[in-house]
Amino acid sequence: MSASFSIQDHNRTLPPQLDVPPRLLLGPGPSNVHPRVLSALSLPAVGHLDPYFLQVMDEIQGLLRYTWQTDNPLTLAVSGTGSAAMEATLANGVEPGDVVLVGVMGYFGHRLVDMASRYGADVRKLMKPWGEAFSLEELREGLETHRPAILALVHAETSTGVRQPLEGVGQLCRDYNCLLLVDTVTSLGGVPIFLDQWGVDLAYSCSQKGLGCPPGASPFTMSPRAVEKLENRSTPVKNWYLDMTLLTKYWGEQRVYHHTAPINMYYALREALQLVAEEGLKNRWQRHLDTAQLLWKGLEEMGLVCHVKEDYRLPTLTTVRVPEGVDAKAVAQTLMKEYNLEIGLGLGELAGKVWRVGLMGYNSRRENVVLLLEALKQVLG
Amino acid sequence: MSASFSIQDHNRTLPPQLDVPPRLLLGPGPSNVHPRVLSALSLPAVGHLDPYFLQVMDEIQGLLRYTWQTDNPLTLAVSGTGSAAMEATLANGVEPGDVVLVGVMGYFGHRLVDMASRYGADVRKLMKPWGEAFSLEELREGLETHRPAILALVHAETSTGVRQPLEGVGQLCRDYNCLLLVDTVTSLGGVPIFLDQWGVDLAYSCSQKGLGCPPGASPFTMSPRAVEKLENRSTPVKNWYLDMTLLTKYWGEQRVYHHTAPINMYYALREALQLVAEEGLKNRWQRHLDTAQLLWKGLEEMGLVCHVKEDYRLPTLTTVRVPEGVDAKAVAQTLMKEYNLEIGLGLGELAGKVWRVGLMGYNSRRENVVLLLEALKQVLG
Repeated sequence: MSASFSIQDHNRTLPPQLDVPPRLLLGPGPSNVHPRVLSALSLPAVGHLDPYFLQVMDEIQGLLRYTWQTDNPLTLAVSGTGSAAMEATLANGVEPGDVVLVGVMGYFGHRLVDMASRYGADVRKLMKPWGEAFSLEELREGLETHRPAILALVHAETSTGVRQPLEGVGQLCRDYNCLLLVDTVTSLGGVPIFLDQWGVDLAYSCSQKGLGCPPGASPFTMSPRAVEKLENRSTPVKNWYLDMTLLTKYWGEQRVYHHTAPINMYYALREALQLVAEEGLKNRWQRHLDTAQLLWKGLEEMGLVCHVKEDYRLPTLTTVRVPEGVDAKAVAQTLMKEYNLEIGLGLGELAGKVWRVGLMGYNSRRENVVLLLEALKQVLG
Repeated sequence: MSASFSIQDHNRTLPPQLDVPPRLLLGPGPSNVHPRVLSALSLPAVGHLDPYFLQVMDEIQGLLRYTWQTDNPLTLAVSGTGSAAMEATLANGVEPGDVVLVGVMGYFGHRLVDMASRYGADVRKLMKPWGEAFSLEELREGLETHRPAILALVHAETSTGVRQPLEGVGQLCRDYNCLLLVDTVTSLGGVPIFLDQWGVDLAYSCSQKGLGCPPGASPFTMSPRAVEKLENRSTPVKNWYLDMTLLTKYWGEQRVYHHTAPINMYYALREALQLVAEEGLKNRWQRHLDTAQLLWKGLEEMGLVCHVKEDYRLPTLTTVRVPEGVDAKAVAQTLMKEYNLEIGLGLGELAGKVWRVGLMGYNSRRENVVLLLEALKQVLG
């Protein structure tokens, strides 16, 4: 067989055994994974059409509905990381020529703009300084001016630490006959979300932040209004892997093969969601708030300033202003090197100006705050 | 916080503890995962820009080059399952209006047609009955007639068990000035592949077959010729998540954040590829062939017939004709129920006509063949 070709060995390297450093991940994500989730991850694989696996998929759907506070039948996990789920909302929600109005108040707003434009949207932007949120009146004016088919907002802007209030926005979108698309990547499982009561039509998240799971399987949901638009598209979805008209046949009763699901990642996501249901949303949201408030108080005592005012501050992710004359990157590197502690640097407009501290999912615990504050004191001298 | 909304508990179900059945996965994939790979999978997470993780990414790239027998600098893992990597070749390789000639000899050829059309290709098809392969002369005639920008072929057609010979095809594609795109989903790590010596320009695979890893991180590579086309595109890549102009800035020296990689899946893939390098391609390919030949001999002794003639038969995946009067699905269900043994059913044109037996990666072992043959004997009576 192929006798005329010879095997080349110059790329046959044997790296040493995997020896992962014991990091405490207090950056913008991934966060450390709950031990029960890691155990679930390494359970033996089964087939993607195995009755047992189909049951796991059903359980993921149900638990996701609880965690997001939605009854959307079309609620599932996308077989990729959060950005894939983000792209899925646009690939399925946008038809070429649709006006998509994006509220840009940070890095991930810009990403929505980029993605929407690739699917042929006529993208309009509402802009806000990095660290602020849109008021309901500003959003109303934007809808009045642009009359979009979709309004896209970031509930938890990972680049700034801002929580965008969403109360009343769904009603506005109904008044202006548009769909409401919301990024909940850094809020799901850590910050109050009421998708149905807020009237959200398209939402996505990730697994590695508030859910305390590794990255690789990402929550996605569409309201019946958004599904109706999908079913009446005049053009096919321009993305096969994320096409919900095909994926719903696998996740739904028909069980038609689409692609091989990332089996072990789904075990992990199911376990992570079960931990949410066991703790209960009320307790979980309170835990995230309590831990964050401990951090905010400690930072204040050290004379450090949070970039976002408390009303709009995310419990899951805090941006801390870098004091005058301090090298943000050098501090983060020292924390990593001497304490195995990861925090995030600023992105985009906030590069060099803030650190980003995540206290999410399994990591939202008092002892992590105490260690971080003390390590930061030592490094800042 | 959000005091005006109340938490709904009707979706707060608590499913029982995960209790995965002990399946032997001898279908078309996923296959059982090597224990060392499962261990790697559940190592603690680190950040996607952690120096340790960047080193793991480099090691994946090097080991993938060995496994595929290529020196392509652009060799990496896509953060999704095999179909995502398949879509990545088309999203990056195709510009709207490009003629793409697809050799369709089974289900996955049709999938290439579907995907290419979503990226605006002018798709042409060369058709072959399910169970046969294209001759070099047939491919030459196709190129002469259609003058495509890309010729897309499936090296290992998972729906039929056919191995498409590729010797000489790369030269033909150079003669006709087109790129050669090859699906190696069911061949990588189990069947001889010489990407560079064959002159392949775009290739993809999956992790859960010949590599013995869970699904969720998928090999992708582009030759310098294909990269040149990418760099000279007149339109942006119509898929953000799979855009190689962005992904190469993360996998390359710049280390610019694109998306959060599926950290634990990459540990697993690295370990799986290291197992390939330890065993060596020559031994690994021979092991797959030996195990397959044992199966073929046993099937013949039982009076069962392989659907593909031996010259083009894949060692990784065998299609077995269902005897007259036997209910294919009932047999598969009995094997699953009574023996915890999964085999695959026929797809498309071969539905009801064949079973699909995979002996891939960690599962390509004598004892699995012995068990399958004996169980099949008992079930067929």
